[in-house]
Amino acid sequence: MLHFDCDYMEGAHPDILRRLVETNLEQTPGYGSDPYTERARELIRQACDAPEAEVHFLVGGTQTNATVIDGLLRRHQGVLAAESGHINVHEAGAIEASGHKVLTLPQHGGKVRAEEVERFIDAFYRDETWPHMVAPGMLYLSHPTEFGTLYTRDELEALHAVCRRHSIPLYLDGARLAYALAASADAPDMLTLPDIARLCDLFYIGGTKTGALFGEAVVITRPELLPHFFTLVKQHGALLAKGRLLGIQFETLFTDGLYLRIARQAIVTARKLKAAMQAKGYRTWIDSPTNQQFFLLPNREIHRLSRYATFELWGPRGEEESIVRFVTSWATEERHIDELAARL
Amino acid sequence: MLHFDCDYMEGAHPDILRRLVETNLEQTPGYGSDPYTERARELIRQACDAPEAEVHFLVGGTQTNATVIDGLLRRHQGVLAAESGHINVHEAGAIEASGHKVLTLPQHGGKVRAEEVERFIDAFYRDETWPHMVAPGMLYLSHPTEFGTLYTRDELEALHAVCRRHSIPLYLDGARLAYALAASADAPDMLTLPDIARLCDLFYIGGTKTGALFGEAVVITRPELLPHFFTLVKQHGALLAKGRLLGIQFETLFTDGLYLRIARQAIVTARKLKAAMQAKGYRTWIDSPTNQQFFLLPNREIHRLSRYATFELWGPRGEEESIVRFVTSWATEERHIDELAARL
Amino acid sequence: MLHFDCDYMEGAHPDILRRLVETNLEQTPGYGSDPYTERARELIRQACDAPEAEVHFLVGGTQTNATVIDGLLRRHQGVLAAESGHINVHEAGAIEASGHKVLTLPQHGGKVRAEEVERFIDAFYRDETWPHMVAPGMLYLSHPTEFGTLYTRDELEALHAVCRRHSIPLYLDGARLAYALAASADAPDMLTLPDIARLCDLFYIGGTKTGALFGEAVVITRPELLPHFFTLVKQHGALLAKGRLLGIQFETLFTDGLYLRIARQAIVTARKLKAAMQAKGYRTWIDSPTNQQFFLLPNREIHRLSRYATFELWGPRGEEESIVRFVTSWATEERHIDELAARL
Amino acid sequence: MLHFDCDYMEGAHPDILRRLVETNLEQTPGYGSDPYTERARELIRQACDAPEAEVHFLVGGTQTNATVIDGLLRRHQGVLAAESGHINVHEAGAIEASGHKVLTLPQHGGKVRAEEVERFIDAFYRDETWPHMVAPGMLYLSHPTEFGTLYTRDELEALHAVCRRHSIPLYLDGARLAYALAASADAPDMLTLPDIARLCDLFYIGGTKTGALFGEAVVITRPELLPHFFTLVKQHGALLAKGRLLGIQFETLFTDGLYLRIARQAIVTARKLKAAMQAKGYRTWIDSPTNQQFFLLPNREIHRLSRYATFELWGPRGEEESIVRFVTSWATEERHIDELAARL
Repeated sequence: MLHFDCDYMEGAHPDILRRLVETNLEQTPGYGSDPYTERARELIRQACDAPEAEVHFLVGGTQTNATVIDGLLRRHQGVLAAESGHINVHEAGAIEASGHKVLTLPQHGGKVRAEEVERFIDAFYRDETWPHMVAPGMLYLSHPTEFGTLYTRDELEALHAVCRRHSIPLYLDGARLAYALAASADAPDMLTLPDIARLCDLFYIGGTKTGALFGEAVVITRPELLPHFFTLVKQHGALLAKGRLLGIQFETLFTDGLYLRIARQAIVTARKLKAAMQAKGYRTWIDSPTNQQFFLLPNREIHRLSRYATFELWGPRGEEESIVRFVTSWATEERHIDELAARL
Repeated sequence: MLHFDCDYMEGAHPDILRRLVETNLEQTPGYGSDPYTERARELIRQACDAPEAEVHFLVGGTQTNATVIDGLLRRHQGVLAAESGHINVHEAGAIEASGHKVLTLPQHGGKVRAEEVERFIDAFYRDETWPHMVAPGMLYLSHPTEFGTLYTRDELEALHAVCRRHSIPLYLDGARLAYALAASADAPDMLTLPDIARLCDLFYIGGTKTGALFGEAVVITRPELLPHFFTLVKQHGALLAKGRLLGIQFETLFTDGLYLRIARQAIVTARKLKAAMQAKGYRTWIDSPTNQQFFLLPNREIHRLSRYATFELWGPRGEEESIVRFVTSWATEERHIDELAARL
Repeated sequence: MLHFDCDYMEGAHPDILRRLVETNLEQTPGYGSDPYTERARELIRQACDAPEAEVHFLVGGTQTNATVIDGLLRRHQGVLAAESGHINVHEAGAIEASGHKVLTLPQHGGKVRAEEVERFIDAFYRDETWPHMVAPGMLYLSHPTEFGTLYTRDELEALHAVCRRHSIPLYLDGARLAYALAASADAPDMLTLPDIARLCDLFYIGGTKTGALFGEAVVITRPELLPHFFTLVKQHGALLAKGRLLGIQFETLFTDGLYLRIARQAIVTARKLKAAMQAKGYRTWIDSPTNQQFFLLPNREIHRLSRYATFELWGPRGEEESIVRFVTSWATEERHIDELAARL
Repeated sequence: MLHFDCDYMEGAHPDILRRLVETNLEQTPGYGSDPYTERARELIRQACDAPEAEVHFLVGGTQTNATVIDGLLRRHQGVLAAESGHINVHEAGAIEASGHKVLTLPQHGGKVRAEEVERFIDAFYRDETWPHMVAPGMLYLSHPTEFGTLYTRDELEALHAVCRRHSIPLYLDGARLAYALAASADAPDMLTLPDIARLCDLFYIGGTKTGALFGEAVVITRPELLPHFFTLVKQHGALLAKGRLLGIQFETLFTDGLYLRIARQAIVTARKLKAAMQAKGYRTWIDSPTNQQFFLLPNREIHRLSRYATFELWGPRGEEESIVRFVTSWATEERHIDELAARL
């Protein structure tokens, strides 16, 4: 059976696991105050070209989003996000559980538009009853989005400008950021890691979906926005006792460009998968340049393929055809795509 | 200057104030354990034809909604509501502040449709990822809606049936319920108070907007849904020390049908206002049978009228014409409408 | 039957009710933007000798405490309070319900001591694990305390100094502040209203227990500590639609010193009550100078007196004797004490 | 340098890491629905002699406590705990952040007493004002306690009986449960794992401190108390994407008694450490039978020893002598104690 359900079906990239084994019996203090974590922070600052940034490591994406957003917002504020944003749909209400409203914006291929963010904020403050409503207190983006799409540099510049104009922080959820970066390499209009660090007030670089056992690296380029973040991480239950496990993993990922290198593999195989599907005459549902690929397949073909491969039905089943999602990862090999193509 | 901004611009109906004066120096225990409050409870149970209902009195609408919804929902659940619902827009995030997500449904003239509620719930549980999402835990309606419209008996029967089928409580926000009842009198397909008590698991009868200084009466026809409600009211800061003030007001409102009688005055004047506007050629923006009336007025007419009357610009100003809201109340007299008509 | 259960058994002082009647049919905008509320704010600023203070009016004490504390604290902080403080005991967990811990200090006759506050804060930051704990973010005092006792000016100066030294706001719960002021008149070492305004960052002047139907006036001498307070009040369900009801009541209370004058009556009768009890040989349980008086009475005497008067058993019943609380108010007359004394 | 700071300074027991390596490139579905996790659940049910128990795996202790307690309590309830309980001190207010008060009981060597729990509950409901207060809704114990001490079987039976009598769940925090079990082996009056499963409604078996990289196994013997726990885990940010990492670790720990075997090593070395300290004339501060040992050491001896070993100063430094904590773990070897003893 071939697996394309998601990008977290394996353990870790072997280099990471090897480092965990090598360091296993060393003794270090907990909670991220060990030398591995310190080096990982430094490597990430270098990769981001952000020497002053603060870097924190958390375990998972939902807890990262909840902790960061809870720390950034004051009680009268909510977080702006695309209606399709992960925080609005698939985090079981974690944002609301900490007391904050998600203020939804229309999504366009999973993305929000700078002019719509601006219009929302303008309309909000033009409405005389605004003090009775939840104020837009920050902007949440995901990159890649939940549909695998990417913001261009121009788009993020524009969003950055809107946020600055209205003095609200811009936060980017990079659960699959490596795949965005790998897909954007050589595209001059697309975002690099230093671009993201320059344009966002904070963001996280996902590890769970790109080769780590688990772990997300929060990069805060304006640390004054999140004082006492450590305590907040603890309060949200997101502080790992053996913090060095996060440090070691990210140190490995950011050594010799491992992070990008393994993400590239997912992009190569995703492109190959798309080509195979299109060669078979199947339409893409959305044009995703990253490792999540969406197709419209006839229901009987979905049924037939299920004998050979796992993948996700995306949304409700249609009358004749349905949307399906195939996900590649750092661990997907070209032969997996060949085997799938042979079954199409 | 004539005032049509809202229905809470005056103090109380004189009969209510008179009773407060008459009883002023009596001494009673606090927190609703006095005989006035007990009598008010009994009168409301009678008016609702719900002898087993529990009745609680709170001070204002937002606190009532927040307390009831917080008490009904378990932590993994959210509240279904029209996207235009008061709890989703104008309560400053009070629902989210207690940790719960508002799950929005499309609004049709401010109303939700039974089939869309059902479709939401069905789609929710058909999605295999539902345990990662906020479960629909109750349904919130407002009646009249924020646009002055009303559910018919058939519509509420259908919503009731959906809620029962999926075992979620049905809660009705009756901030302006008296105006709904007064507008529905003699219409056989419209809702009576006993209908509402029969079809909703709980609801509140608004006092603030219909003749009381303040106060909302929560009627719980299935008290097993809200054990320990008293403590929750206290925790939400919604417990009035001199609880009898609420009892005396509602006792007065529910004696000799005062409640309905004074609401009828608002309906009579609202209809007269609508007729005057239409006679002048102005279109209604939505067909409201209750005391909130919405019109499309040319911007220069809005400007001109503002010298004589106050009313609310509803939403953003348009290019040529804009939506305005005029509200009548128990205290509006026919001569006020005559004076306004003379200025049109 | 004579009633000494509490100080909120009647309606309002007749002057207040008269003003509500006089203004009843006037039309004003809601939510505190009316001229009565504006005048009340100004009168309170004058009485506090705090021309720059912000004044907000809320309905009840628990909601006031919850809203203010929630607004002041950041997520990683808690509120320091005496273990006997109202917020720690009798507010049904309202502080925790908004996500904040009450950090308890020992109480001494209901009061906290400056040196113990300082010791708590010092010990907190000396403990290397402090980032894993809830940081002391503000200090809550009640004055009079839950036991009727009062801080002296020196004591409040010392507490003020500690709070300033550690940059945490000092908040005083003045649910019965009028009685404190009335009891302190002519005592040069005791606190005046301008003293309190000078030494506290914010506090509230209780209306519910001193002649108003309901209402508490929050005085914020450092408004920068609570931006967006209006929205927070709304979010906490504490915003009264007919806000002028609060304005009119406080305007009346702060006109011609009504506030202090009616509080004095409670102090006179409390002292007379204490003298009558002591003349009968009963011991006071705590030496309270205000309108709450605590006595140790033999259980059979408690039983006998209950036929003539209502009062509160304070804590659990003892073997032989128990603590009882008698409360006088602005509405207590000297003849009530005479009648009680005749029954002792 | 020798390290006795805590029991989470290393990575994982080599057997665990080996299993992670062996299974690394297998593909399994996420969120705990893989076969490893299923087997781990079954092994734990067997070890607990609780065939009907539900078993969930979370990442860390604070998140486990917060999620479980939030799921068990209704909004008007709080959690009873020793004042020294981890949830009351070292979890950065995580319990309050989800809206619940910690109701503190006196601690006796870190333990609560059944009669004091009962007295608290009885006094609570005897107080007529109880509906204004936070109701005791569950009992939290830690075993071993924060001071390394253990409940006897009789003590837990008594606590169980009190909880049953008052219909509140009994929850046991077993962050270091393995060390408790290892220290209790052969002691007929001490608790076995089946005893704990029989007497507690739910508890967790800590992995982080006993050989796992991370992970805590929540055992729910009365699953009806926590419906929808999966969604709550997600909402609390405590759901690990690659859930099998938890399954594999606990499967390994509960295979061939590894869990107890490695805990025994910590007990053996802790006893040896205590003997060495006592031989040197140092007093124990509290008599702990588990892997945390507390001693009173002269300050200059603390200073001197710090050159050779790390350990924790427990509480504030004293004038002459101070309390220190030494912690052994599954990874402590006898030679480490010999080396330390040679330095004493």
